[in-house]
Amino acid sequence: MENSLREKSAQVVQNAQTRICQALEKLDGKAKFKEDVWERAPGTGSLGIGHGGGKTCVIENGRIFEKGGVNFSKVEGTLPPKLAKTLVGREEELPFFATGISLVIHPYSPLIPTTHANYRFLEVADKCWFGGGADLTPYVLFHEDAVHFHRVHKTVCDKHDASYYPSFKKQCDEYFFLPHRQETRGIGGIFFDYVGREDRSEAEKAYSLVCDLAPAFIEAYCPIVERHQDDLWTQEQKDFQLMRRGRYVEFNLIYDRGTQFGLQTGGRTESILMSLPAEVRWGYDVRYPDIGPEAELLEVLRTPREWVS
Amino acid sequence: MENSLREKSAQVVQNAQTRICQALEKLDGKAKFKEDVWERAPGTGSLGIGHGGGKTCVIENGRIFEKGGVNFSKVEGTLPPKLAKTLVGREEELPFFATGISLVIHPYSPLIPTTHANYRFLEVADKCWFGGGADLTPYVLFHEDAVHFHRVHKTVCDKHDASYYPSFKKQCDEYFFLPHRQETRGIGGIFFDYVGREDRSEAEKAYSLVCDLAPAFIEAYCPIVERHQDDLWTQEQKDFQLMRRGRYVEFNLIYDRGTQFGLQTGGRTESILMSLPAEVRWGYDVRYPDIGPEAELLEVLRTPREWVS
Repeated sequence: MENSLREKSAQVVQNAQTRICQALEKLDGKAKFKEDVWERAPGTGSLGIGHGGGKTCVIENGRIFEKGGVNFSKVEGTLPPKLAKTLVGREEELPFFATGISLVIHPYSPLIPTTHANYRFLEVADKCWFGGGADLTPYVLFHEDAVHFHRVHKTVCDKHDASYYPSFKKQCDEYFFLPHRQETRGIGGIFFDYVGREDRSEAEKAYSLVCDLAPAFIEAYCPIVERHQDDLWTQEQKDFQLMRRGRYVEFNLIYDRGTQFGLQTGGRTESILMSLPAEVRWGYDVRYPDIGPEAELLEVLRTPREWVS
Repeated sequence: MENSLREKSAQVVQNAQTRICQALEKLDGKAKFKEDVWERAPGTGSLGIGHGGGKTCVIENGRIFEKGGVNFSKVEGTLPPKLAKTLVGREEELPFFATGISLVIHPYSPLIPTTHANYRFLEVADKCWFGGGADLTPYVLFHEDAVHFHRVHKTVCDKHDASYYPSFKKQCDEYFFLPHRQETRGIGGIFFDYVGREDRSEAEKAYSLVCDLAPAFIEAYCPIVERHQDDLWTQEQKDFQLMRRGRYVEFNLIYDRGTQFGLQTGGRTESILMSLPAEVRWGYDVRYPDIGPEAELLEVLRTPREWVS
């Protein structure tokens, strides 16, 4: 089994975790990631009979990063029939294996965007597939940041299949959408799921895509952090960030399938909710001028834009 | 129709809104409630064809109250078959009428508990019923506050039916529970639903109960505010409050049926999410000493207590 897709995938996301944490720590220069290795004993969790573990790495109170987490997990067991039906269309108890990396980074500065990435491999009975993506949530819109983030991901996707980026970009805008706000969570990126489920050779192809995409996060995000790390921000920008973080929480708790799946299946709460920002604010019916930086960002959140062609 | 249960119920909750806002404003002494009268045009919202309106009253940045809202609404229309099935067991388009008051109050001081109350009347085709309740979420546990809040509600309930309080108290502990934290949201109160749905005379009885319960909120909550309004609190207590408010947000966004119903049926987002606190904080795996005020509160949230007998 040492060269099976599941073992190779676990290795890829685990290596990505190490490299991403190193890169972010180096950027921050002050805070270190705290590592929590956890294990799930056989039979616990409402995901059915399962066991496995992971490593949750959390950085807090850094020079740049207020709160961020990079989580790796690898779990296997038996899926309850209902979940098996949703995932592969067979309503019966089925063996599963899941491994993935999931990260969310919240910098202090409202000039540096929040970001999220997640890459995962799932195997249920004889089917397997990849899912994941990466997206950017700025509080002040810098055109070059959005273009850079999308371009890095497009370049990697294009190397594997020219149809990937246009499809994944669209899926990202559709997925990270808050109906009750009529806004996207951020300026998008890529999002995909079930890639390879119907065709083993597509799964092999998606594996090599994820091998490139997971570490590409560093190239996509770190230059944006470096560009703004020394820039001064205003209290107005901070207030706007705190309020927009409320939208981030709303999305994650109300709509995010990963969060819901995790909480409903008895996942490790602290690892799942590490995605929430440290400081958040809600006001009643807060409004912003029709012209200005807030309006410019809201316009892009209401009407997703093509950042690279 | 002027004496119908629906009109009488709308009157009761509307009057309660006025009296509660007056009482809270008087207590605060600084901030005033901002009133937003809103109307829903016929046909809007995914609740099917409906129209109506309401008044959202919000207090912010007061002497005592950091953020609080008292919402009244009165809406009628046609329910989609799926929702009708859930509510009255008939999968067909049915006429409905709904009116209610919903309030959430977040004081600055961690010594003054957050509170929530909601009383509503629903009519679907030939069925009608009442639902609602009131509950208290302290950040520092004062035994006398918990006893007072429960006693006021028990006294009112007992006047109408000795079986109400024990049943409603239990339902409250069960409803305001966060499975992923294995904690209740606060120290409870009362919660009930569908009272009178199967029996018109029970609905009439529940009407007179709600007539007493809605204004009783003032007697249940205001003395607790007065007791602590001048007490000094520590930064540790404030930090604990901000973190516990995170749990409040988690409950409201992940589990609260009213919030989900409202957002899914195209309700007014700002009126629904006025329940969220102003300032909130999340940390990773924050722990507290096994002995001390935090542990004492957490113990009660893990094992609900009988406050009055």
